[in-house]
Amino acid sequence: MSKQELRVLGQDDGADGCCPGLLSAPLDEGQAAELAPLFKALGDPVRLRLLSMIASGAGGEVCVCDLTPAFDLSQPTISHHLKLLRQAGLIDSERRGTWVYYRLVPETTDRLAGVLTRPAPLEPGSVPLGAAE
Amino acid sequence: MSKQELRVLGQDDGADGCCPGLLSAPLDEGQAAELAPLFKALGDPVRLRLLSMIASGAGGEVCVCDLTPAFDLSQPTISHHLKLLRQAGLIDSERRGTWVYYRLVPETTDRLAGVLTRPAPLEPGSVPLGAAE
Repeated sequence: MSKQELRVLGQDDGADGCCPGLLSAPLDEGQAAELAPLFKALGDPVRLRLLSMIASGAGGEVCVCDLTPAFDLSQPTISHHLKLLRQAGLIDSERRGTWVYYRLVPETTDRLAGVLTRPAPLEPGSVPLGAAE
Repeated sequence: MSKQELRVLGQDDGADGCCPGLLSAPLDEGQAAELAPLFKALGDPVRLRLLSMIASGAGGEVCVCDLTPAFDLSQPTISHHLKLLRQAGLIDSERRGTWVYYRLVPETTDRLAGVLTRPAPLEPGSVPLGAAE
């Protein structure tokens, strides 16, 4: 079992310094500037659908030739959206022969899931973590 | 313990039909159109910092009077960003006397964390869930 599988998603990812939780402490400017483009890349319905098709593809990858027909959009438009997802580090690509194949970069989505995960339940009247002392 | 606390984040949220996992099956157009504005709202560093300040505020809420001084931005600009976060359902607000107080809507961030959570680890050579039969 990999280290990743053992990670407890309910906990703040900040422990290793790599991924501060968005909900546990105020982000500084640098952290916010680094995270915002990742969320921005997800802020488009076509890119969300592309990412979900790639992530759920059998064998872990999807040929661009299988992505384009699913949309009423030109191939250059699809390529542009794929480029934005790749630049954000959400997907990776590999050319093999005629076609380009895309696969999810799970570390990136894991990271985003981690920063959106609450360190502890915030319920009415509860005291947020770190505010008790 | 609330129902929410018991939810296993590593599992696909699609079971109750409310929140399909982005990584477990292709999103349809409607699901993507519904999710994209939420991610778009997070796709800005000022909004990410505002959200993290609000989420980690002692007592679970933050006065707008404590948010504005943290930024080199005008009060109307901060108000605009707060409005976008509120419209996305990420925060809620309440006016009390002179000031408006903001608090996180944890159901929304829980939902986004859920859709970004992998249904099962995707490792090289592994067969994605549902592709084995």
